Amino acid sequence: MPLPRSTPVDLLLDATLPDGRRADVHLRQGRITALTAPAPTAPPVGGRAVDLGGALLLPALVDGHVHLDKTFLGAPWQPHLPGSTIRERVAAERRLRREIGVPVVERASALAELLITQGTGHARSHVDIDPDVGLDGLHALLEVRERFRDRLGLQLVAFPQGGVVTAPGVPDLLDQALRAGADLIGGLDPEGFDGDPDGQLDVVFGLAERHGVGVDLHLHDPGESGAAQLRAVAARTAALGLDGRVTVSHAYCLGELDDHGFGSTAQALAGAGVSIMTNGPAGPMPPVLRLREHGVRVFAGSDNIRDAWWPYGNGDMLERAGTIGLRDDLMTDQELHTALDLATGAAAGALGLTGYGLSVGDRADLVAVAAAGVPEAVAAHPARLLVLHAGRVVHAADHP
Amino acid sequence: MPLPRSTPVDLLLDATLPDGRRADVHLRQGRITALTAPAPTAPPVGGRAVDLGGALLLPALVDGHVHLDKTFLGAPWQPHLPGSTIRERVAAERRLRREIGVPVVERASALAELLITQGTGHARSHVDIDPDVGLDGLHALLEVRERFRDRLGLQLVAFPQGGVVTAPGVPDLLDQALRAGADLIGGLDPEGFDGDPDGQLDVVFGLAERHGVGVDLHLHDPGESGAAQLRAVAARTAALGLDGRVTVSHAYCLGELDDHGFGSTAQALAGAGVSIMTNGPAGPMPPVLRLREHGVRVFAGSDNIRDAWWPYGNGDMLERAGTIGLRDDLMTDQELHTALDLATGAAAGALGLTGYGLSVGDRADLVAVAAAGVPEAVAAHPARLLVLHAGRVVHAADHP
Repeated sequence: MPLPRSTPVDLLLDATLPDGRRADVHLRQGRITALTAPAPTAPPVGGRAVDLGGALLLPALVDGHVHLDKTFLGAPWQPHLPGSTIRERVAAERRLRREIGVPVVERASALAELLITQGTGHARSHVDIDPDVGLDGLHALLEVRERFRDRLGLQLVAFPQGGVVTAPGVPDLLDQALRAGADLIGGLDPEGFDGDPDGQLDVVFGLAERHGVGVDLHLHDPGESGAAQLRAVAARTAALGLDGRVTVSHAYCLGELDDHGFGSTAQALAGAGVSIMTNGPAGPMPPVLRLREHGVRVFAGSDNIRDAWWPYGNGDMLERAGTIGLRDDLMTDQELHTALDLATGAAAGALGLTGYGLSVGDRADLVAVAAAGVPEAVAAHPARLLVLHAGRVVHAADHP
Repeated sequence: MPLPRSTPVDLLLDATLPDGRRADVHLRQGRITALTAPAPTAPPVGGRAVDLGGALLLPALVDGHVHLDKTFLGAPWQPHLPGSTIRERVAAERRLRREIGVPVVERASALAELLITQGTGHARSHVDIDPDVGLDGLHALLEVRERFRDRLGLQLVAFPQGGVVTAPGVPDLLDQALRAGADLIGGLDPEGFDGDPDGQLDVVFGLAERHGVGVDLHLHDPGESGAAQLRAVAARTAALGLDGRVTVSHAYCLGELDDHGFGSTAQALAGAGVSIMTNGPAGPMPPVLRLREHGVRVFAGSDNIRDAWWPYGNGDMLERAGTIGLRDDLMTDQELHTALDLATGAAAGALGLTGYGLSVGDRADLVAVAAAGVPEAVAAHPARLLVLHAGRVVHAADHP
């Protein structure tokens, strides 16, 4: 491997930019300092310049929804245990995580390493906070965040996987989690899991207000029940002035509403600045293009990767963009650019990342892909040739 | 690359077999000659032995449905042209293929190379036969088949993309195609495209009988119309004694029937020995487990790869098995083995391949995957380390 990890790179020669232009990209101190027309004669390639040979250069991919604490990566293969309801799956997960033996820090680190090789530079991970596990998972992920601070940006959401108002002591645990370093407050099916939408949202938004943090809430509840909760989240977001800082993850119900219900719900989300995260599931899902037409920010995440919820996943956000694109019938070049945006710009916006992009001054968190352009990268998710974080190599294929 | 292409391999050390056992796999003259317990001390690795270090060894993957003549691979990226009906898409395709400039042989070869790197050892390709293109595509793919004869097994289906009874001269062209070397006769939506189910099926099954070839028919028609055509195909298959030699590709309608309609249709397919091919589409699809419970053989294919029909696809049949698995909720280890079977044993059966598998005497068409077992291979479709065809290297990762 000609480019050992942590090598600082000063110059990326002959990159294809997302808009199709070719450019040499100059880097210094972890930032993009200039984009210039490719030099007619390439300068000699030294340790700090890499010739991309026309490969596509993207800002590092953003995985807007992972569960680093849940993965079985780093442990021997765990066969999936069946279970159809959310409560059954939560119970199966508690059983499995007691038996697995390999500590969270080790498993989460294995997944973080995988994300990096896929070109992901920033991720938002939910972390279980429940009466059983307490803050143990959070402390483990805080350690992982520190361990990877030079290679992967990590946001942590305090996630009440066992419910909020129906789980003894959880509101207090969530409060402690935010004091201990969690970046956002999460939630779970206020109606479907807790049976008390107002009660759960009182706690969640109360904590958001008290700690000045954003919200990222899991919502699997279907149809009109789900839509009513989306509108309730929008109303609370507007009331607290949390525009741009609240996400509802999954929101399958948006794929099940009639035109009137969809329109009024999308309008409420757009008006309040509530974002929607999807992983392109097999069943009903939020319609990406329709939501964007209504002004709703939609972004992408892997969700579970090889854990008690399902055995699938490899953390590839280009593949994820393609999965969502196939589900939402994104076919033209413009639509494939939109699919990429779900895992780049839109996700960066939802996460509130600053200095994200390919402009002068932006952070040199970059990924080079073996593709001639964005449409091909989404349609075929080819190899990642080189991944930089703050201008340093964090992953390099053998022959970049 | 330590293993140049076409190197014959005599011994694969320390493979993990699909059932989880570890074994050394001995090869000679393109066949598996023995499976032995891994030697306690590995013999020195020479040019003809490869240490797999516990990597999963599978029989080469089988892509049961591709369109080698349609792909834009090998040509510059072609933006997708919208078009919603089958007729509109056929017309867009004719326009594009006139403009693309790069000959079919070159584009099909580029796709064949890609399939090989993904571990595919055998593929069934449809090839357009229509009044516009005549037999040109067939002659090109016959040349490609010859060019790749030592690296990839290819079956060719004479495919009337422009219809049969509504397209002037096509029945005669199909007859010529079979005489020129096509292996099977195809068809297209007898009701939805030709508007004459009996008329199209008379031609298709008449040619099958006359030439003693199998049938592989595209069927996109929905609901009860689709189901009636499936039952008609089953009846004709039984009448001609074509048990095991007839496939219906896509058959979306099987995902739309009520229990009674599904049961009677599945029973007809199973009774006549008609197989069903799916690529795990976004909309309604054949339910894999339910069909298998009824005794219907289901297998997998890529379908279009970067062509006028859609820009997606990379020919990875492990990823395809995972896509189908996610759509059909295949989660347990046993179900993930079933998902793999769609792209290995079941597909080999549908294609009528002999000597396929991992038993002594089987052809040494093999792929080593960077996975600890079959469930992981399907769930994450990791790297292909080594691909052999008839015992010779056709692809090797840099560090197998």
